[in-house]
Amino acid sequence: MTINITPVVNEFESPDLRLAGWTRSIKRSVLREMLAVVSRPGILSFAGGLPAPELFPAKEYAQAVNVTLSRDKEALQYGPPYPPLKGHIVDLMAQRGVACYEEQVFITTGAQQALNVLTRLFLDRGGAVLIEELVYTGIQQALAGYEAEIITVPTDLELGMETDAVESHLLAGLRPAYVYAIPEAHNPLGVSLSEARASRLVELARKYGFPIVEDDPYGFLTYDKEATPPLRSLDDRWVIYVGSFSKILAPALRLGWMVVPEYLVPKLTVLKEALDLETSAFIQRTVAEYLEAGHLPSHLNQLRDEYRLRRDTMLASMERHFPPVARWTNPSGGMFIWVELPGHVDTTELLTIAVEEEHVAYIPGSAFSVNSGIIGSSLSDRSDNCMRLNFSNSSPEEIERGIVRLGRILHKHC
Amino acid sequence: MTINITPVVNEFESPDLRLAGWTRSIKRSVLREMLAVVSRPGILSFAGGLPAPELFPAKEYAQAVNVTLSRDKEALQYGPPYPPLKGHIVDLMAQRGVACYEEQVFITTGAQQALNVLTRLFLDRGGAVLIEELVYTGIQQALAGYEAEIITVPTDLELGMETDAVESHLLAGLRPAYVYAIPEAHNPLGVSLSEARASRLVELARKYGFPIVEDDPYGFLTYDKEATPPLRSLDDRWVIYVGSFSKILAPALRLGWMVVPEYLVPKLTVLKEALDLETSAFIQRTVAEYLEAGHLPSHLNQLRDEYRLRRDTMLASMERHFPPVARWTNPSGGMFIWVELPGHVDTTELLTIAVEEEHVAYIPGSAFSVNSGIIGSSLSDRSDNCMRLNFSNSSPEEIERGIVRLGRILHKHC
Repeated sequence: MTINITPVVNEFESPDLRLAGWTRSIKRSVLREMLAVVSRPGILSFAGGLPAPELFPAKEYAQAVNVTLSRDKEALQYGPPYPPLKGHIVDLMAQRGVACYEEQVFITTGAQQALNVLTRLFLDRGGAVLIEELVYTGIQQALAGYEAEIITVPTDLELGMETDAVESHLLAGLRPAYVYAIPEAHNPLGVSLSEARASRLVELARKYGFPIVEDDPYGFLTYDKEATPPLRSLDDRWVIYVGSFSKILAPALRLGWMVVPEYLVPKLTVLKEALDLETSAFIQRTVAEYLEAGHLPSHLNQLRDEYRLRRDTMLASMERHFPPVARWTNPSGGMFIWVELPGHVDTTELLTIAVEEEHVAYIPGSAFSVNSGIIGSSLSDRSDNCMRLNFSNSSPEEIERGIVRLGRILHKHC
Repeated sequence: MTINITPVVNEFESPDLRLAGWTRSIKRSVLREMLAVVSRPGILSFAGGLPAPELFPAKEYAQAVNVTLSRDKEALQYGPPYPPLKGHIVDLMAQRGVACYEEQVFITTGAQQALNVLTRLFLDRGGAVLIEELVYTGIQQALAGYEAEIITVPTDLELGMETDAVESHLLAGLRPAYVYAIPEAHNPLGVSLSEARASRLVELARKYGFPIVEDDPYGFLTYDKEATPPLRSLDDRWVIYVGSFSKILAPALRLGWMVVPEYLVPKLTVLKEALDLETSAFIQRTVAEYLEAGHLPSHLNQLRDEYRLRRDTMLASMERHFPPVARWTNPSGGMFIWVELPGHVDTTELLTIAVEEEHVAYIPGSAFSVNSGIIGSSLSDRSDNCMRLNFSNSSPEEIERGIVRLGRILHKHC
């Protein structure tokens, strides 16, 4: 079996239609292409960022659908944001340590839409945005096409975003349209922001007057202790919280939310209408029904128990089978472990070997690099020797087998 | 009861956060505000553009959900566009007289997302777009914030878009990023483009090399004869077809599609990912299951029969109860009738009277005017004396009663 995971840039040109100039810089999503390649049958893949499908509450959600469709004629109609769903989100936020009220909750078609709407809201053409060097590709995609100045800061693998580096940029005069952060169980790094750095970042936002976009898809998925309260619990004026049902219920619901200062809601409403008119009334009402039926707490416990087991299985197996030169993060939540190999190892090249020789896959670190990824263009990066491993979408047995295989590859090439 | 339907522009300013400059020009959606006001209990409203909720195939769709959720673990997971749904869309397009294949079908989160993605794809900052003077507000929203030069052409109430006016602009040097058209059962005007003008428009697109964005939400809802085949049946290179399940199944599915030249799909994929990652795999699979079960043809027949009855009831009732100075369109499909009153009548002022005195509502014509609406700023327009009436969302009995009431208002004020 041979695979080709080299990103193909602009391999197609429009033979007829004149396209907007900026679309010439559009790159295909390397991540999506890799995922397509490594999701072939027979490959043990730690590549994706997918939840475990066998844990989806399909039966309970089907019940919620049946109750809703039999009772509520408006469930298939156009409709405004559904207040009972907002009420349940206020309750969820309280569990996360955040006090808010329904008028601050803004429903979105998944968290990705929130990132898009917030970029439209805050970013002037040519304005600056501050993000981490290695970060979720979705924020990079949301920023493409705005001619934004992308300022990056490093991330410490134990303490999270380097807030000293943030302050240096601010002292040098940077006034970002926003700072993007994933404080809990960072994707791809699996690190959580320390409480000291969280406080520091919020203080900087207040002092310099910039919004923090806090992306919290994994905040309800922590495995060792209570999750750290989000940045939004420290400040309700400068922190915009972005939440998602994708990882705690199901991605195919395409349902997310923001908690924002109330005065932003009218503008956000108009921006969102331009994108997709509204978020499905059907999905909003069925999820509200699922939550009303009280299924979520036990479901979250089940997710935490199972993902904790998978994480622990992967970490223990890595300990046994990876060479001592490999280092990795120890995530307290989320879905990912970040692995650093010696500097001479190129994990993009290694992926081809891993898939061909051992039928095991991961995502090379450079896929998440702002400098070598969707926005930037340099071809080398300090993440070239790194990989992201997902532990949520494989059974403990698959994790064991896959890590043994990957260990053999690493022993050969590190 | 008093109502206030004056659009409030920029009534809020950000007390803290610095917003992107262009957001200062954001106006609240007048249409949405009016709809909120006139949807109070006790008001007979012809204002919205809503399908009849009592005709939603809730039972058959619930069956499709139950079958899908019990059988298909991937239905709640992240997932790529679902090929069986594309196959059904190819079949639907064939019924509309369009030959296409699955690789040309692009799934969207409703048709509004298609308009957004196409605007991003074709429109350079400061570029021009050609649309009709009176047109669906969603396209106006999709264009807001791009600093587009909006060129408008009039619409003949019997033959549709004035293609002579389109050609005049082209002869004068205009090269639009795209031309937007609703050839079948225009919203808000209820007119269908004549076959001669359809051919002419497509010839102009070929000759001058611009794409036509063909919005066809009502193409399956025609009541007198076979629907005219869409522009896409005349040309597969220059016409981008936009379709929607909102009016033929249910709006809350938020499911639409495009038929595009195949070479555009990779770029569209990246543009769409930035907006919302992907369209719900759950919705795609359940709608495919509904279609696979063969429910749609009889459902469409039922919709056509009932909407035909409602249209005919409204037209006959208008004939009996409206003053002779009122003129209106005779739509062969869709959901709307357009009414022109004498020039001195201001239908925005009249709406307040209609709601207060007779508890009946419509949408004033100016809500759809590009010049006085979302993008433009002038306050007077040739649509100020017009109104749009919806006939799909009221029972024949309600239509009778509402038209009697509206007739009394018109007799007093025309």
